[in-house]
Amino acid sequence: MTSSSARDSRAPAGVVSLTTDYGLADGFVAACHGVIARLAPALRIIDVTHLVPPGDVRRGGAVLAQTVPHLPLGVHVAVVDPGVGTSRRGVALDTPAGLLVGPDNGLLLDAAGALGGITGAVELTNPRWLAPRVSATFHGRDVFAPVAARLALGAPLAEAGPAVDPASLVRLPEPLVRRLPDGFVAEVLTVDGFGNVQLAARSELLDPLPARVRIDPVAGDPAAADSPAGVGGWEREAVHGRTFGDAPVGALVAHADSAGRVALSVNGGHAAALLAVVPGTLLRVRGSGVVGDAPGQYG
Amino acid sequence: MTSSSARDSRAPAGVVSLTTDYGLADGFVAACHGVIARLAPALRIIDVTHLVPPGDVRRGGAVLAQTVPHLPLGVHVAVVDPGVGTSRRGVALDTPAGLLVGPDNGLLLDAAGALGGITGAVELTNPRWLAPRVSATFHGRDVFAPVAARLALGAPLAEAGPAVDPASLVRLPEPLVRRLPDGFVAEVLTVDGFGNVQLAARSELLDPLPARVRIDPVAGDPAAADSPAGVGGWEREAVHGRTFGDAPVGALVAHADSAGRVALSVNGGHAAALLAVVPGTLLRVRGSGVVGDAPGQYG
Amino acid sequence: MTSSSARDSRAPAGVVSLTTDYGLADGFVAACHGVIARLAPALRIIDVTHLVPPGDVRRGGAVLAQTVPHLPLGVHVAVVDPGVGTSRRGVALDTPAGLLVGPDNGLLLDAAGALGGITGAVELTNPRWLAPRVSATFHGRDVFAPVAARLALGAPLAEAGPAVDPASLVRLPEPLVRRLPDGFVAEVLTVDGFGNVQLAARSELLDPLPARVRIDPVAGDPAAADSPAGVGGWEREAVHGRTFGDAPVGALVAHADSAGRVALSVNGGHAAALLAVVPGTLLRVRGSGVVGDAPGQYG
Repeated sequence: MTSSSARDSRAPAGVVSLTTDYGLADGFVAACHGVIARLAPALRIIDVTHLVPPGDVRRGGAVLAQTVPHLPLGVHVAVVDPGVGTSRRGVALDTPAGLLVGPDNGLLLDAAGALGGITGAVELTNPRWLAPRVSATFHGRDVFAPVAARLALGAPLAEAGPAVDPASLVRLPEPLVRRLPDGFVAEVLTVDGFGNVQLAARSELLDPLPARVRIDPVAGDPAAADSPAGVGGWEREAVHGRTFGDAPVGALVAHADSAGRVALSVNGGHAAALLAVVPGTLLRVRGSGVVGDAPGQYG
Repeated sequence: MTSSSARDSRAPAGVVSLTTDYGLADGFVAACHGVIARLAPALRIIDVTHLVPPGDVRRGGAVLAQTVPHLPLGVHVAVVDPGVGTSRRGVALDTPAGLLVGPDNGLLLDAAGALGGITGAVELTNPRWLAPRVSATFHGRDVFAPVAARLALGAPLAEAGPAVDPASLVRLPEPLVRRLPDGFVAEVLTVDGFGNVQLAARSELLDPLPARVRIDPVAGDPAAADSPAGVGGWEREAVHGRTFGDAPVGALVAHADSAGRVALSVNGGHAAALLAVVPGTLLRVRGSGVVGDAPGQYG
Repeated sequence: MTSSSARDSRAPAGVVSLTTDYGLADGFVAACHGVIARLAPALRIIDVTHLVPPGDVRRGGAVLAQTVPHLPLGVHVAVVDPGVGTSRRGVALDTPAGLLVGPDNGLLLDAAGALGGITGAVELTNPRWLAPRVSATFHGRDVFAPVAARLALGAPLAEAGPAVDPASLVRLPEPLVRRLPDGFVAEVLTVDGFGNVQLAARSELLDPLPARVRIDPVAGDPAAADSPAGVGGWEREAVHGRTFGDAPVGALVAHADSAGRVALSVNGGHAAALLAVVPGTLLRVRGSGVVGDAPGQYG
């Protein structure tokens, strides 16, 4: 937990990345860039996205976790922070492959896992690292950006504030994934700008399934998921392929996406609209072959 | 007015910032980046926003003024320019804390104030500073970007064109703010991406008000504002807090925002939608205590 | 076609630019930035746009072609790639003024023309230039970004893969432009964020027309375009001006735009909404003077 000592001698980081729900129509993102550039004029800043839906901590965490493995070694700031100005902690987490900075509300933990796990954590309380006047509503600018710049310049993590027990960090509930005898149940994790539906299931769960699969929504009780009840309404067949191009235009494809998860896509179309699913929807994916034989049985 | 002499020896600036209504779906912003990068390859460019509503000079000026204090010393280009290609002047303004470049239509003046006031101004007429062929419709690329790059590299302001009397610069009408015996009236200045409603009033006007305030719309005649007539339709009570988290989810909060102005926010909601206000709406904010006692009196 | 030898000694490029349909809400763009920054930490990246409508290859190609002439010498990556993961080739094209990298689906060819024409082309097959595991759906990150970074660092084009005959590259149909005795017919090429309607016609076709022109939609058969039949529904008169400011607020103006093409704009308004046109619509623009004399004749 006190990896900060190991970090005392680390080289300055290559980049700071930013992931927020600030939107692009205001000057909020630029103010963060400005604060960082004042402290670290030569540092590269990479914007991951600023279009996380306002307050959607899970979505912010998913985008961050899937992007950080492709970024240079650096300090990754994320701010999706409905609790700004309340007593929630600001934290910095150390990992074997970079640092994470943001609110202690679960946003950073999947990314920490993607970077090799938490090896140290501190609460951001050192006033000399923050803006002279910290506003109640804009900790991105006044807390997280200056802390990230200082860490990127090589300042020791332990100077940012007192160590925090990683076990005490706020965690989001794990997205539901259950193996079934003939497939799996998984929660919809995100929908991207093309309408591709990403499931929480790793693609290894899809690999053993046959060339065609059937998909239907199931009831959301995790305890019942080993034998889930379909909620009915629809069932669709999909090609089990390598990419959307493996099916005719308009057809549904289940495939491994570029983050290693199961995704549902429509060649030339919008899978989320077709299926009418949103993040959090539970879907059941099973080997096909009997579809249409007994139309009532999945109701 | 001829501070350009003082600037003759100034060091190159750290950054160029860009604030426009160009949107992000075309190549307009990139063309400006390209022009600057060709002239000044090592210069950092910070995008403030390119989503100013088309032609909304006041909104562009407000975002710029609230962001520049947080940017490194530099040259700030702003282009919200419904008069491009007409006889409106292009100008560069010098201030104690940076330079501003854009059309002479009022867009730059609040930012100049935020940077310490205008200490020099020139009209951008030197053809050697502009694109070889200046298009009639894209002065961001052909006039303002190359001028900004040259200024950022340290070229003297006086070479950009003849001095302009700051008193001759086009000014927008001041947004209305009036102190009342029990509160204030202020114009809605901007609405951010979270729906937070920023008033033109500085937060000092909110400070003396009690823990609960009431808010209603008033008629838009500035001359009558010392004794404004409510326009009726609604009145709402708000918590006078430090941040949105100081009220229950869904409740309205009046607080000082990160730019030092009064803002109205809804914890977990969208205040502008709740109140049905837009920039320019006049709101009255007064200490509460009598709300509900005489429902007709604010009509 | 083997300009790659000439490139063996070229200096590292100044920038990499990115043009995609990835949107800004996911981490896709940042992953590309990250891959490039890992390989070439000092390289400037310019985002042209990431809001090309999904799969709209023509629109992506038009934005790219109109922007690259204003960018520094560099490597321009474009990914609008509905065929990702199928057998379509990935290619890099050399030109006298920069390199282009992307799918072989017609996206890059107008930009190649704007940079002086194709002087060499290769297929991107060298596995040592790509990600260790190339995903089926994210070639921007796994193929085009690493190739661009290597080329920007000065690696020879010929190392990226085998030479390709430029005549074999996939081409989009040319947008339709036809000269008429009293004007021209042209396809709507793009609509920008202000609603300005850009026609495929170069502005030289507008120059000889009088101070007022009339515009109407015509039938889409190119073979019939020398004597096109109006499709009726509407005809509008426009000012032939230098910029939108040359007409009263709300009036339609035909002018040369900043890319040297004919554009239709409304002073303070949205021309595409006014005319109800989209990319691909064929418009006829002719000298006016008889408008209203024979209202039925354009039907």
